[in-house]
Amino acid sequence: MPVVPTVFFLSDYGSDDEFVGVVHAVIAARAPATRIIDLTHHVPPFDVRAGSHTLRRSVPHLGGGVVLGVVDPGVGTARRGIALEVPRPDGATLFFVGPDNGLLLAAAEAVGEAPVGSAVELRRVAPAPGRGVTFDGRDLFAPAAAALSAGAALASVGDPVAPQSLVRLAGGVVEQGRLADGRRCLRAEVTWVDRFGNLQLAATVADARVADLPAAGRVELAVPAEGDREWQDAGGMPRALVPDGVHLRRVDAFGDLEHGELGLLVDANGHLAVVAREASAAHWLNLMAGELLTLAW
Amino acid sequence: MPVVPTVFFLSDYGSDDEFVGVVHAVIAARAPATRIIDLTHHVPPFDVRAGSHTLRRSVPHLGGGVVLGVVDPGVGTARRGIALEVPRPDGATLFFVGPDNGLLLAAAEAVGEAPVGSAVELRRVAPAPGRGVTFDGRDLFAPAAAALSAGAALASVGDPVAPQSLVRLAGGVVEQGRLADGRRCLRAEVTWVDRFGNLQLAATVADARVADLPAAGRVELAVPAEGDREWQDAGGMPRALVPDGVHLRRVDAFGDLEHGELGLLVDANGHLAVVAREASAAHWLNLMAGELLTLAW
Amino acid sequence: MPVVPTVFFLSDYGSDDEFVGVVHAVIAARAPATRIIDLTHHVPPFDVRAGSHTLRRSVPHLGGGVVLGVVDPGVGTARRGIALEVPRPDGATLFFVGPDNGLLLAAAEAVGEAPVGSAVELRRVAPAPGRGVTFDGRDLFAPAAAALSAGAALASVGDPVAPQSLVRLAGGVVEQGRLADGRRCLRAEVTWVDRFGNLQLAATVADARVADLPAAGRVELAVPAEGDREWQDAGGMPRALVPDGVHLRRVDAFGDLEHGELGLLVDANGHLAVVAREASAAHWLNLMAGELLTLAW
Repeated sequence: MPVVPTVFFLSDYGSDDEFVGVVHAVIAARAPATRIIDLTHHVPPFDVRAGSHTLRRSVPHLGGGVVLGVVDPGVGTARRGIALEVPRPDGATLFFVGPDNGLLLAAAEAVGEAPVGSAVELRRVAPAPGRGVTFDGRDLFAPAAAALSAGAALASVGDPVAPQSLVRLAGGVVEQGRLADGRRCLRAEVTWVDRFGNLQLAATVADARVADLPAAGRVELAVPAEGDREWQDAGGMPRALVPDGVHLRRVDAFGDLEHGELGLLVDANGHLAVVAREASAAHWLNLMAGELLTLAW
Repeated sequence: MPVVPTVFFLSDYGSDDEFVGVVHAVIAARAPATRIIDLTHHVPPFDVRAGSHTLRRSVPHLGGGVVLGVVDPGVGTARRGIALEVPRPDGATLFFVGPDNGLLLAAAEAVGEAPVGSAVELRRVAPAPGRGVTFDGRDLFAPAAAALSAGAALASVGDPVAPQSLVRLAGGVVEQGRLADGRRCLRAEVTWVDRFGNLQLAATVADARVADLPAAGRVELAVPAEGDREWQDAGGMPRALVPDGVHLRRVDAFGDLEHGELGLLVDANGHLAVVAREASAAHWLNLMAGELLTLAW
Repeated sequence: MPVVPTVFFLSDYGSDDEFVGVVHAVIAARAPATRIIDLTHHVPPFDVRAGSHTLRRSVPHLGGGVVLGVVDPGVGTARRGIALEVPRPDGATLFFVGPDNGLLLAAAEAVGEAPVGSAVELRRVAPAPGRGVTFDGRDLFAPAAAALSAGAALASVGDPVAPQSLVRLAGGVVEQGRLADGRRCLRAEVTWVDRFGNLQLAATVADARVADLPAAGRVELAVPAEGDREWQDAGGMPRALVPDGVHLRRVDAFGDLEHGELGLLVDANGHLAVVAREASAAHWLNLMAGELLTLAW
């Protein structure tokens, strides 16, 4: 099969403005043979963490190429622009280009389940006369992504930096423990609410804690005991939890549920997810990304 | 002209998440020469009927290739995944790939105004270890669409099924009759409210009933008579209707109307549509898709 | 580098419907080698002026090709469809195709900072039998854009018209003067509110008035004096303005601001913009496109 040079592009640029189209045009002008695949441009504005999760979920399905990721509240400041190079298990190479703010690192490490070996700081180019420095997606990152997709070596777009110096985001919270009533519980951060209202949790099937969950039947949602709300921000396990009467049925598919029933399944990314049938579990439970949710059984 | 293998992709995946981008990546990895044209990914979540209408409107403008349609509330259940093959009048072939829930069939039959002759049930592939079965767009349908776009035969992606066994949605309601005051009337389902608020009706210029409409002048909207509201769910003609004083002017173009005037025109798909000038007829009349609307003259 | 024929496509079609996808399909069928880059399809419905600004901002970053712009409330009426040809400074040619309602002209003139030399009125084609005339993007403009992208001459798609006869929109308001308290002031129209809530002003660094602004420190927003509100619609300078206590700090980047602080910077298009740090200046100041804003110093 012929290899088509590819840029996989994610941002928080949205679709109301011409930002995405102009970046496409810049890449097309510099690397005419490159195909651009838009992963999504609707990362919530400035939400580096959400963008990082999205890239992390996407990388297992990308071939070789360049991931261009731009969620960049620090554009124009001293934060670095970086490019990373990681080998894929199939022998292809995947580059990552974007700001050094944690957006790219977890995804890059996930490609080969290994630390990133090669990283450079992009050489800043002077903006065109009379233009500001607020659009590095267009002026800095797109040219670098175009060059790498067209075969340029990593060293040609920047100067080496120590991979250990790259900004790293904290991982999603996953904890286990016991309720006041003695039942086991798993507490996990909601890392993603998708279009359909499914609540993806930080816990994956690779977590030993998930293996302890009953494979069938029901688990219960737990909430902090009265007078013990401070745990919500504490990062550790709550001192006391009580069941709140909401049960989730273990299922494999949305359609295994009845209408009006909540379920718990392993989703297509291998994460636990709280779901409903043709309805939004997020609306139902009034939860959003970043909140903590506790399962008890 | 060179023929570029093409996948036409419609879904209810939206643009907030990476679903669409990941499907693109999967197709690109398997069929590098294939071009993907996104029809829309904003079919309302789970709305198989709306997706079916959208595909039906689109097919007259598609060349040969593969239509990948995914609006699939039954993903992961026993519902079948299917691929259909239909000849186009110009000699090219159009395949359809997606769930067997009625999404594809009407569009496939519209290609040649003929029943579908060739259909297969896609051979399910085991999901990657530790991953759930909730993303057939990525795991089942995209690989099949990629293969067909790259030249694979229908029989290579699945096992034959009888076309008569395919799930079929009911068509849109179009009825004619007379009002209590003796005037003629046409009752039709609103099948689509577009971005601009135009209300497309199930009635087309090919319907004899539409030919009876006055070509110029005005028609009136009618509403059920007091005490006769049950017809709204009945599917047949109301027993009694009364004019409601809202008039639609027969026009050819939005700009033929005055601001603040409602119109009735034959739209670019050959359907009757209730429209306004630079304004939303849907907001004005407080109507949405699936409701019934009666024209009297 | 190989030249890939390219259409740059902007519209107010949105993403909910199949409009954009069908136009892609029409172009792909007629010009298989042409690549389509979507600039944006979320111009507010019918907002020719916003679309014109968006094209104007985009053209410096486009290579040779065809700009297909469709914001077209007059579709189906006597308004002309046009195609323009302008040489780019790098020797390539950029065509513009769309309605003659002011959408294209300012952008076309910006390509080479010169009047448009060559313009044609597109030859209307009869719609398919039984189809209305409400989708010129598909039926008239896409075929013309496809032909031009594939190498057709301008004269082959239409008949010459005098460039002076093309519809022209008024430019954005930029005025200067003095406040009642003697300070200098610059009054400018908000021409764009982007996804992040940044308020782009009509004033650019090429305006002598902008050069007078202090390069650092703060400028103040001014509001009309009590009893002098009529200026808002007058188009000229207000008779009396008073400071309103809102200060903007001159900065280079969003991240130079503190959270909760408003700033004034030169944006990536060379325009003045009122911005905040990871927040929407538009929401903060309750301003939208088309309003006038006065800076005093």
